[in-house]
Amino acid sequence: MARILYELAGADEHCRFSQHCWRVRLALHRKGLDYEGRPWRFTEKDEIAFAGTTKVPVLVDGDRTIHDSWSILEYLEDNYPQGPTLFGGPDARAEVAFFRHWTERVVHAGLGPMIVHAIWERLHDKDREYFRRTREERFGKTLEELEAERPERIGAFRQSLAPLRATLEGQPYIAGAEPRVPDLLVYAAFLWVRHGSDLEPLAEGDAVAAWRDRMDADFRDA
Amino acid sequence: MARILYELAGADEHCRFSQHCWRVRLALHRKGLDYEGRPWRFTEKDEIAFAGTTKVPVLVDGDRTIHDSWSILEYLEDNYPQGPTLFGGPDARAEVAFFRHWTERVVHAGLGPMIVHAIWERLHDKDREYFRRTREERFGKTLEELEAERPERIGAFRQSLAPLRATLEGQPYIAGAEPRVPDLLVYAAFLWVRHGSDLEPLAEGDAVAAWRDRMDADFRDA
Repeated sequence: MARILYELAGADEHCRFSQHCWRVRLALHRKGLDYEGRPWRFTEKDEIAFAGTTKVPVLVDGDRTIHDSWSILEYLEDNYPQGPTLFGGPDARAEVAFFRHWTERVVHAGLGPMIVHAIWERLHDKDREYFRRTREERFGKTLEELEAERPERIGAFRQSLAPLRATLEGQPYIAGAEPRVPDLLVYAAFLWVRHGSDLEPLAEGDAVAAWRDRMDADFRDA
Repeated sequence: MARILYELAGADEHCRFSQHCWRVRLALHRKGLDYEGRPWRFTEKDEIAFAGTTKVPVLVDGDRTIHDSWSILEYLEDNYPQGPTLFGGPDARAEVAFFRHWTERVVHAGLGPMIVHAIWERLHDKDREYFRRTREERFGKTLEELEAERPERIGAFRQSLAPLRATLEGQPYIAGAEPRVPDLLVYAAFLWVRHGSDLEPLAEGDAVAAWRDRMDADFRDA
């Protein structure tokens, strides 16, 4: 049966930048599961109403429909035990919760303001008003003001990665010897930046950049 | 055979404030292992020279001597498989590395400047000059300047706990259903504050404070 992933897309339907959708793409790749990625825009709420949500990712797997990236990761782990574990076993799943919150509250929170204007530029015309309005409300600034603050934000962002950097100076992946959910979460955030902007958030020689290179090689076809 | 833990102490030998020593105390308690805690002061380098280090904790376990809190945690897990697991199994050990670095680079780094003057006040006279000199070098400020900055630092510290707070809003312990190394690391940092200062670093109603209460109950005799 067909597996379909509804993914956020820009004006160019091949521009798939959402960090939440990347989580699922990476997990599907890790589990060796084929799928058809279907482009979706912010304002196409009707298209995914069948899934009971207004946001992607939405995964349709045969007769099952799952939304929310975290729920999809758990679904894939539970229903496709073949292939490498994503979470490191049921016992480890709770411990991974912290990585999710760290990624969202530190990595996303640090990167978001720096790339939000660039993402707006890549959006389909029909999404631009919605995106600008909701993001300017969230940040309390215009997209142009946020863009102008990029140089002063980049240093604090790099500093906020100190725990990640120290970890990756001691081992090849965040999860240890192989990439698991903590790696997928953080790598998805860097793919959001890569596909949604022209920002290079890391300095040369950073252990985090070396890890990102390893992830690029591991997930080349994702 | 005797088990001896060399622990940092203040002027009052019962004032044991070191967060690194607390990690070991908590792990010994979790494993149900008895020990004799031996007070040690910063300037008593000769007393622990036999262990090949200038810092505590040092654990003497029969004919074995181990130093460095992390090495001691690994030693206890490897040599005392009875009792609850500290790390969640060998497979999970690498994933715990991030928690260690997060605790040190975010929690310790946030709390340290706020309590360093209070710790200095609690030290034995013979330690005070050494401690003041090394800490003022490290921070580039006097202990009194750091103490005066406390009110402006506390908000940023509480904010930096956002990933921890979000995790503890969803589950009782950082590691999930029971306390493991991630919990011990962060709780040890709060015990450092409690025994080394009069600072209350958490706001009322914080999920982190509720978790700290649970840890207080679990480790009452540690």
